[in-house]
Amino acid sequence: MEGSGRRDREARRRRSGGSHITSLKNPVVQLARRLDRPAGRAEHDRFLIEGVRCVAAAVDAALPLDSLLVTETAALRHAALIGRAADVSGAELLRVSDQVMAAVSSTVTPQGIVAVAPTVAVPVDRLPAAPDLVCVLDRIADPGNVGTVLRAADAAGAGAVITTAGSAHVESPKAVRAAAGSLFHLPVAARVPWPAARDACRARGLTLIGADAHAAATVDDAVWDRPCALVLGSEGHGLSDEAKADCDQLVRLPVYGRAESLNLAAAAAILLYEAARRRRETRP
Amino acid sequence: MEGSGRRDREARRRRSGGSHITSLKNPVVQLARRLDRPAGRAEHDRFLIEGVRCVAAAVDAALPLDSLLVTETAALRHAALIGRAADVSGAELLRVSDQVMAAVSSTVTPQGIVAVAPTVAVPVDRLPAAPDLVCVLDRIADPGNVGTVLRAADAAGAGAVITTAGSAHVESPKAVRAAAGSLFHLPVAARVPWPAARDACRARGLTLIGADAHAAATVDDAVWDRPCALVLGSEGHGLSDEAKADCDQLVRLPVYGRAESLNLAAAAAILLYEAARRRRETRP
Repeated sequence: MEGSGRRDREARRRRSGGSHITSLKNPVVQLARRLDRPAGRAEHDRFLIEGVRCVAAAVDAALPLDSLLVTETAALRHAALIGRAADVSGAELLRVSDQVMAAVSSTVTPQGIVAVAPTVAVPVDRLPAAPDLVCVLDRIADPGNVGTVLRAADAAGAGAVITTAGSAHVESPKAVRAAAGSLFHLPVAARVPWPAARDACRARGLTLIGADAHAAATVDDAVWDRPCALVLGSEGHGLSDEAKADCDQLVRLPVYGRAESLNLAAAAAILLYEAARRRRETRP
Repeated sequence: MEGSGRRDREARRRRSGGSHITSLKNPVVQLARRLDRPAGRAEHDRFLIEGVRCVAAAVDAALPLDSLLVTETAALRHAALIGRAADVSGAELLRVSDQVMAAVSSTVTPQGIVAVAPTVAVPVDRLPAAPDLVCVLDRIADPGNVGTVLRAADAAGAGAVITTAGSAHVESPKAVRAAAGSLFHLPVAARVPWPAARDACRARGLTLIGADAHAAATVDDAVWDRPCALVLGSEGHGLSDEAKADCDQLVRLPVYGRAESLNLAAAAAILLYEAARRRRETRP
């Protein structure tokens, strides 16, 4: 079985690696271009992974990939990565012209390598049964922030991330880029209505700790030693009233200087690391 | 004296508030457009403050402003702020057309309010004599990162920020926006050659604590209770060899999950807050 699978892949690689796509009418290129938009991602249940670093992270995480579009220059420069992508992830390799790459890529200076991947976001009921730390992003509209917080949650050792309805999609090109591979490291449930997100956390025995700039308690007062979900709202609007009412604790980050507040990603990183530090201190 | 100053300002406000500038050849408009570029800022020792939030922060900080360009719509919507700007900061008010605003502003959807201000960056020898916590940004090329870290340094109660030569300018429009007013809250010495930055810190008795992903010691091992300078390099390149050699301690942020690292602004925020927390713990 494995031998025949490998032969198939080899054959596919030879077949496609030889062609050189210059037309925007190529079906894979057309698909890839549609994935730049939410409607295209929803319709096809697929998303784009752009650039060397993110594609390498996807391959390292053994993510299945449908196709890998590479320019001539990138094919020469990143031959090892492209070989691994074909072997590990089963990606079909497509050589494309620089013009095709520019049309597919959402970056101003594409690195010449873009993968099409099946969605990685999971339904909220498929999240792990007993995570120790979960990060919930409540209506965070900026995809860069969503990706950056996902990366910080991964670094802090969180077991899952949930974004609520109204958030930017974690599989938008900007979020994927900002997550720098972390999207492939921990399970993410995307755009979950708040009540379902709350229930999923409660069903897992998590204390809901909400960040609220107007809370009386500070982060030092929070009880961090139990499994918990850290709930973060947007910089402009904060948590929804519903989310605030449902949280078991509301805490704020103290501001020592004259800044009005921190930006969302910075505040999230501090809180996630505080949670990580405190649970390590209290459970030696 | 004060009465005559106020009369002058009143007169100036009446004079200019009545005009409506539609030409890109207006000298103030020409100056403002040049301040989008480093050469223009260096030549004129001035920079742009864009948007309601940043202009309000500048006015709150009693920053002197040369001029305030506002569209008709913004003039109606933000009358109180504009009045305060004229009173407090001495800004000359210029009503401009939407087209002029679009040409001056660096944002895609301008809020219709832009100030021209004399530079706020100070020479490194003019920094406070005995700051307790300083943040040094070593060759951080991304202006958004520079501004975001400046904001986090302000929130953490830092007494000054230094950027080294090779960093994005703190007075570039993107950095000013990301700093969200913090540029007007604490002294900043910009683009200082590393040896001068190091000497300025040492002359102030600061321990140099460098963040280095490859350090053996973690942030927990650092000695935070003495006045210190936290030295941060870029995400891509880290600290220069020179900076690393000069630091008294090198520490890394532990990564608990599978992320390779954190992004610079997130790491900076965590470290700055850790410094703030630890010095508060050890000096009750």
